[in-house]
Amino acid sequence: MTQKTWPLNCWYVAAMADEVSDKPFGRIVCNLHIVFYRNTQNQPVALEDFCPHRGLPLSLGYIEGDEIVCGYHGMKVSCQGNCHSMPGQDVRRMKGINAYPTVEKYGFIWLWPGDPTLADQTTIPALDWAHAADWAYGGDYYHMKCDYRLLVDNLMDLTHETYVHRSSIGQKEIEENAPETYREDGEVRVKRDMYSIVPPPFWGDALEANQLPRDAQCDRWQVCRFVPPSQVMIDVGVALAGTGGQNAPTEKRAAAIVVDLITPETETTCHYFWGMARNFNVNNPELTTTLREAQGKIFAEDLEVLEEQQASLLRNPQRRLISLNVDAGGVHARRVIDKLIQQETETPNNT
Amino acid sequence: MTQKTWPLNCWYVAAMADEVSDKPFGRIVCNLHIVFYRNTQNQPVALEDFCPHRGLPLSLGYIEGDEIVCGYHGMKVSCQGNCHSMPGQDVRRMKGINAYPTVEKYGFIWLWPGDPTLADQTTIPALDWAHAADWAYGGDYYHMKCDYRLLVDNLMDLTHETYVHRSSIGQKEIEENAPETYREDGEVRVKRDMYSIVPPPFWGDALEANQLPRDAQCDRWQVCRFVPPSQVMIDVGVALAGTGGQNAPTEKRAAAIVVDLITPETETTCHYFWGMARNFNVNNPELTTTLREAQGKIFAEDLEVLEEQQASLLRNPQRRLISLNVDAGGVHARRVIDKLIQQETETPNNT
Amino acid sequence: MTQKTWPLNCWYVAAMADEVSDKPFGRIVCNLHIVFYRNTQNQPVALEDFCPHRGLPLSLGYIEGDEIVCGYHGMKVSCQGNCHSMPGQDVRRMKGINAYPTVEKYGFIWLWPGDPTLADQTTIPALDWAHAADWAYGGDYYHMKCDYRLLVDNLMDLTHETYVHRSSIGQKEIEENAPETYREDGEVRVKRDMYSIVPPPFWGDALEANQLPRDAQCDRWQVCRFVPPSQVMIDVGVALAGTGGQNAPTEKRAAAIVVDLITPETETTCHYFWGMARNFNVNNPELTTTLREAQGKIFAEDLEVLEEQQASLLRNPQRRLISLNVDAGGVHARRVIDKLIQQETETPNNT
Repeated sequence: MTQKTWPLNCWYVAAMADEVSDKPFGRIVCNLHIVFYRNTQNQPVALEDFCPHRGLPLSLGYIEGDEIVCGYHGMKVSCQGNCHSMPGQDVRRMKGINAYPTVEKYGFIWLWPGDPTLADQTTIPALDWAHAADWAYGGDYYHMKCDYRLLVDNLMDLTHETYVHRSSIGQKEIEENAPETYREDGEVRVKRDMYSIVPPPFWGDALEANQLPRDAQCDRWQVCRFVPPSQVMIDVGVALAGTGGQNAPTEKRAAAIVVDLITPETETTCHYFWGMARNFNVNNPELTTTLREAQGKIFAEDLEVLEEQQASLLRNPQRRLISLNVDAGGVHARRVIDKLIQQETETPNNT
Repeated sequence: MTQKTWPLNCWYVAAMADEVSDKPFGRIVCNLHIVFYRNTQNQPVALEDFCPHRGLPLSLGYIEGDEIVCGYHGMKVSCQGNCHSMPGQDVRRMKGINAYPTVEKYGFIWLWPGDPTLADQTTIPALDWAHAADWAYGGDYYHMKCDYRLLVDNLMDLTHETYVHRSSIGQKEIEENAPETYREDGEVRVKRDMYSIVPPPFWGDALEANQLPRDAQCDRWQVCRFVPPSQVMIDVGVALAGTGGQNAPTEKRAAAIVVDLITPETETTCHYFWGMARNFNVNNPELTTTLREAQGKIFAEDLEVLEEQQASLLRNPQRRLISLNVDAGGVHARRVIDKLIQQETETPNNT
Repeated sequence: MTQKTWPLNCWYVAAMADEVSDKPFGRIVCNLHIVFYRNTQNQPVALEDFCPHRGLPLSLGYIEGDEIVCGYHGMKVSCQGNCHSMPGQDVRRMKGINAYPTVEKYGFIWLWPGDPTLADQTTIPALDWAHAADWAYGGDYYHMKCDYRLLVDNLMDLTHETYVHRSSIGQKEIEENAPETYREDGEVRVKRDMYSIVPPPFWGDALEANQLPRDAQCDRWQVCRFVPPSQVMIDVGVALAGTGGQNAPTEKRAAAIVVDLITPETETTCHYFWGMARNFNVNNPELTTTLREAQGKIFAEDLEVLEEQQASLLRNPQRRLISLNVDAGGVHARRVIDKLIQQETETPNNT
């Protein structure tokens, strides 16, 4: 690859918190093969997934105390990636492996794949709903065989809902109401309002879950927010028509945040941590399950389209993506990404 | 690929007529990814299978009137490959995609992958039996992982029947009777006559279907006709010995045309539309089915051999195919193909 | 591949004797596609697996007398690789294919992939147990997706037993007792003795099979012997403590030779003919079966580790294997291999 397609000096979601335990867990992030585990303080550890002795992935080994033990000849590696010990050998001066800054926050394991001296936990984007008592969250993970930026494009242009998600959240009013694209608070935002519409099935269900009639005349909103380097938070909802839309009182609306935490795996594959945070009917775990399953079906439709799109683009390297009005959100997001990459490239002490 | 292996300015069979409908259908022809569908006049349409907006294959979309609609964001493309419309966008001046001349004839969809200004329907090779009341036809499609020319070679040298099709149409007299190779009517022909032989099982069945004894002493003929760029029609049959062979009266013989319509997919794969046209017992659809199934089994034997041959040749790039007497038909056919390619390459306005 | 990874002028085990019969059998050895069969004298024949006519693998054909017949058009090739005959053709002056020196010995088919004029049967390493009445042998074949040298490394450093084979032959005393590495009789040897240990389960079973108590205090030994180019014979066993170890009387010990005959297939795959020769309870075929199954499970653990190691090394081409004390056996074995390769490269008449 001659051109970088992602910045490295930033926090990416590498795993859901419960994926990382005292059993080693291997995953590729930004082309780096990494093994994750928890040490005796229950803190997540992220090391290069390569035994410094004979190269077996450490993820095939096991954890002993704070160290990871290679499953081939017993090389022990510390949380810092140093060679700790090996039976019958003195390995303390042996060259170790990379350790990556990693943090557990908001129910996810965050990884900093770039220069470790620049890693600053306070720059992890705030996910306020994750700590709020009046919000509930459900989500899951999909592996996607597409460039992570195609998924960002997808989420920043919701006109695709009419075509890809006809039976759930699509409706013709989406493409009839042109959105507004702008930058605010370091984010790229695409805002669309639809007035006096009949909610599509997914939102009919949500109204009912909030004790409102499923076929009420409603105002519907979508605010896609691209948070660098690769998150998209979408404020979505419907409110009884004329009650204030996104600002309507809680009992007049069903509102949620579609959460899209995206992490490059390779140039043509990515990790997709998706979910929905809602502030209605929050103490109802069955509803959480129902919503997650409904959302899982919808995002599986995106997965199919995006993998087909990626394959088609790989077959046609001479082609460029064309950007129309509807693509403005994705275009701006890519400009932000490109600028982050450019800044890293120009910084001399960056790897 | 540095060297072209097929001519482009000619008609290839791209599909059986019933494969193309009002649902989009994607297929690769001569390395081109193409989507096929029928417009409101029931005419076949062939377009580049690539949405000019974001690159999703159009074959994942749907048909609306004469246009094809992309399944991602609703880009509509016309039968001519022009951007027709898109919700909330003005796309009429956007660069469209390639449209390919395509014709339905003889029960097949024919495609012209080359310069569209040179496409002339009258140059589609005549398949007279397709329209004749005293002929019946049955056939099917195989995808083959081999260079289409290996399949042409196979069909122009039937000595392989003794080895590949021992239990059905092979017999030792095939290789005992050297064929004659010559050019006639723009075709390469390989003609073999066998006199006073016992018909092999396939022809025994055919004799019985024509109310003749299956074990009668017969004269057998095979005339392989290579029709450029990549068809092989084989006149085959058996007649009671001494009654005139290929010219014997209908009631003394069982005769057929083995139909082989071959289309390059990639340099190492091809489409094989095969079948059999017969002029005996034509109003017997059960016989058509029986013959198709028998032929399908025989051609599956070729498929296995040809895919193994292709893989072996790819493993041994330093090797060349050796041509012996028996290969004269294939050698001549390849010369015809090479000349067509050379003519195209020399024509300056050709792409 | 710019660098050779195996010598060619030596004998490799290509097959178990019963894999080669009067049906052609195709296998890749040292990147050469080879077809094996037995001629009318029951001698093994090894030819290039490529029909000199049209390139179909000869292994898809059949044997007729001493010749192999191609399954496509009947080309007959002699045991020497010459074109013998073909129906209706004179092929005697056609260029044939390579024939490889091959010998049946010790229950295996040995192949010489290099310069045939240098092939000397007397240089096949002696496997004395194969002919001895007081020894029994059982073994099998595994295909492994790893460089054959990784398997040699594995077998020359048995500290991996503690990690890879914990439940069968591993025990902590292995890594507590440093081995001695030395060269003797043209072999690289790694010798380890463990005194007064409790035998692990596999050896407990072996003691019982030799009418000894499974939990007796024992002395255990392991002598890994690398025999160029790619065999590892491991003298292993346990004897009642203080009775002489490897030299203890037969009734006081259970001893065996772990037989590892390794043959490169490609740069990243190999053939593994493994087994165990024992000189206790030799007239007990049920025990042979039991041991083979137990050994098969153990070596399947190695297979998994080695294939993961190979994949990891391919992902990390910038990395080098690190060699510690425990790796001395493998290091010496690779030096022997490299020297053999170097000698061939410097010899001008070598292909």
